[in-house]
Amino acid sequence: MAKDPSHINPELPEKGQRLLTADAYVEGILSGDRYMLSRAITIVESRAEKYRKVAIEILDRCMPRAGNSIRVGITGVPGVGKSSFIEKLGLHVIEKGKRLAVLAIDPSSRISKGAILGDKTRMEKLSARASAFIRPSATGHSLGGVARKTRESIILCEAAGFDVVFVETVGVGQSETAVSHMVDFFLLLVLAGAGDELQGIKRGIMELADAIVINKADGKNLENAEKARMAYLRALQLFPPKESGWSPPVMTASALSGLHLPRLWDAVEAYRKHTQENKYWEARRKEQLRQWLHESFEDLIYQRLHDDEALNRQMKQLENEVIQARLSAAGAASLLFKSWVEGLHGKG
Amino acid sequence: MAKDPSHINPELPEKGQRLLTADAYVEGILSGDRYMLSRAITIVESRAEKYRKVAIEILDRCMPRAGNSIRVGITGVPGVGKSSFIEKLGLHVIEKGKRLAVLAIDPSSRISKGAILGDKTRMEKLSARASAFIRPSATGHSLGGVARKTRESIILCEAAGFDVVFVETVGVGQSETAVSHMVDFFLLLVLAGAGDELQGIKRGIMELADAIVINKADGKNLENAEKARMAYLRALQLFPPKESGWSPPVMTASALSGLHLPRLWDAVEAYRKHTQENKYWEARRKEQLRQWLHESFEDLIYQRLHDDEALNRQMKQLENEVIQARLSAAGAASLLFKSWVEGLHGKG
Repeated sequence: MAKDPSHINPELPEKGQRLLTADAYVEGILSGDRYMLSRAITIVESRAEKYRKVAIEILDRCMPRAGNSIRVGITGVPGVGKSSFIEKLGLHVIEKGKRLAVLAIDPSSRISKGAILGDKTRMEKLSARASAFIRPSATGHSLGGVARKTRESIILCEAAGFDVVFVETVGVGQSETAVSHMVDFFLLLVLAGAGDELQGIKRGIMELADAIVINKADGKNLENAEKARMAYLRALQLFPPKESGWSPPVMTASALSGLHLPRLWDAVEAYRKHTQENKYWEARRKEQLRQWLHESFEDLIYQRLHDDEALNRQMKQLENEVIQARLSAAGAASLLFKSWVEGLHGKG
Repeated sequence: MAKDPSHINPELPEKGQRLLTADAYVEGILSGDRYMLSRAITIVESRAEKYRKVAIEILDRCMPRAGNSIRVGITGVPGVGKSSFIEKLGLHVIEKGKRLAVLAIDPSSRISKGAILGDKTRMEKLSARASAFIRPSATGHSLGGVARKTRESIILCEAAGFDVVFVETVGVGQSETAVSHMVDFFLLLVLAGAGDELQGIKRGIMELADAIVINKADGKNLENAEKARMAYLRALQLFPPKESGWSPPVMTASALSGLHLPRLWDAVEAYRKHTQENKYWEARRKEQLRQWLHESFEDLIYQRLHDDEALNRQMKQLENEVIQARLSAAGAASLLFKSWVEGLHGKG
C-alpha cells in the first residue's frame, strides 16, 4: 500500500524518504518501475533548490529515451465527463497493447490527498491496470510553471516506456493553450446543450482542436448529440485550414456505452500517420522543444527572482523610495539589478 | 528651425549632437526649456547602453519635481477624431491658464519623420502655442517598453512645469490597459454608429473609462450621437461601481463646434477633486509607482537578455542540443543561466 504511487503527496517531495542518486531514479524509470517513476516526477516537480541538481540530471538522462509516445491533450468544461471518458478510452488503448500514462493539469485548485484519492476512485478500472500510470500534476504558482512540469513529466513517462500519454486539463482559458503546445493531438470534449449548441466555446479553443467529441451521446441524448455534431461541423468550416493539413473530425461518443471510442482512437492514429508523412509531426515537435527551452529559461529567472529574499527586501525598500519620489523607477530598477547580479555571483 | 523639437527624430538619439551632462538637461528641464525637454526625452527613450547612466540621473533628479500634473489618457479607434479632439480640448485647457504636454503612444507603427510632421500638421494650432508641448513616443520593441518610456516622459514633462499631460493611444487592445495604468483619468472617445451602437467596444476598455465621449456630435449627427449616449449610459450601468467611487459621465461632444468640451474638462477637474477628497488619488498614484518599479525591473532584465549576444549565441547552440534530445530544456536553461550570470559579472 505504501508503495502505491497514487498515495505519494506531490506537495511533500520525498517526505520521510531518502533522496536517491540520479542513477537510481533513472535506472528505475528505464526499467519501467512505476513507483520510481512517481518518485522521480515528485522530485522534478518540486521547486526546492536542494532537488534541482538531481532533477536536472534525471531529465537530461531521460531525454534521449523520450519522444516515442503519442501525446494527446484532452480538455472540456467541468461536467463534460472527462474522467469517465479518459478511463474508457484509456482501457481501449491498453487493450490495443499500448502502455498509457495519464497526467492531469489543474491550475485552478491545489491538489490535496483527497483529490488524489478522488482521482483514483474516478479512474478505478484504469488505475488497476499494470499498463496504466495515472498522475495528477502538482499545482504550481503559475500556469507556466505547471505547464513546464507537465512537459517534464511527459519526458519521464516516455523514458519509462509509456507509448501513449494523455494530458488532461480543465476547460479554463489559458491552460488549454499551454497544453496544446506540449501535445501532438488536442481533443476537445463538449456536451450537447439545450440551447445554443456552441455557447461557452471560445473560438480560441475550438481552433486548437484536432478532434471535437460530443460526449454523453447515449440514451435520450443521442439525437441532441447528433444535432450538436452538425452545429460544430458547420462552425469548424468557418476556420482556416490547419497548418498540419489535418481536418479535425467531429464525432459523437459515449463513455457509458463506449460508442465511437475505437473510431476516435483510429482518428488519433490516422493523425499521426498523416502528419508524419507530411513532416508536420517532426517540425512541430522541434518547435515545441525550442519553445520549451525558452520557457524553462524564463521560468528559471522568474523563480530565482521570486526566491531571492535579499532582493525582495531591497525591492520593498526601493518601492518606498520611489513612492516618496526620492528615486525614479528606472534608477531603482538599475540598483536592484546590480545587487541581484552581485548576490548571484556571491552564491557561485 | 533646427531647434524645433518636433524635428528631432526620436529614433536617432542625439544624432550629430553632443551628449550633455545630466546637469545641463535637468537645468534646462526645470527652467521649462522645451528644446532641452525634448532632447532629454530622446535620451530617456533610447535603449542605447551609452545613454543609460545619464538617462537615469536625469530621471532621478526630476522625480522630486514631478507628480503635480493631472494625467489624462485618451483613447478611441482610428477615425474617431482623436487629434482634432485633443487639439480643441487642449486649446481650452491652455485658455484656462494651464501648460499642456501631449504624449502619444502608438505601438502598432514605427514613427517616421513623416509621421511627426503629420502629427504637427494635425495639431497645428496647439503646437504653435507656447504653453503646449506635443511629442509622439518613440516606438519600442514591446508595448511594455513603450509604456515605461511614456511614464518616464510624463515625469520629465511634469518637472518642466506642465500641469496637464494628455497621453494619446490608438484603440488597439492592450495599449489602453497600459495607458490606463499610468494616468489619473481615462477618457474613451467613441462614434455614433449606424447599427449596434456598442459594437467594437470591448468590455475591458469600457470598464477602464472615467468618461465616455461620443465625438463628432454635430450637424446631422447630433441625433445619432444622443442615441449612442443613451446606449452607452445603459451599458455602463451593467458594470460594478468603480473603486474610485466615481460615476463615469457619458457625454456628446464635437471637436468641430466645440460642443461640451468645457463641460468635459470640468468633469476631469471634478474627478480630481472627488478622488483627492476620498484619498483614492493618492492611493492610486502610489500603486502606480510601485507597479512602475516592478515593470522597470522586469523590462531591464528582458533588455539585458535581449541585448546579450553571447547569450543569444549559446541559446541557439543549446536549442539544437535540446532538439537533438541530447539535453533537457531544464538542463539547458540551467547552463544558460549560469553563463549569463558569469557574463554579467565579468562586465562589472
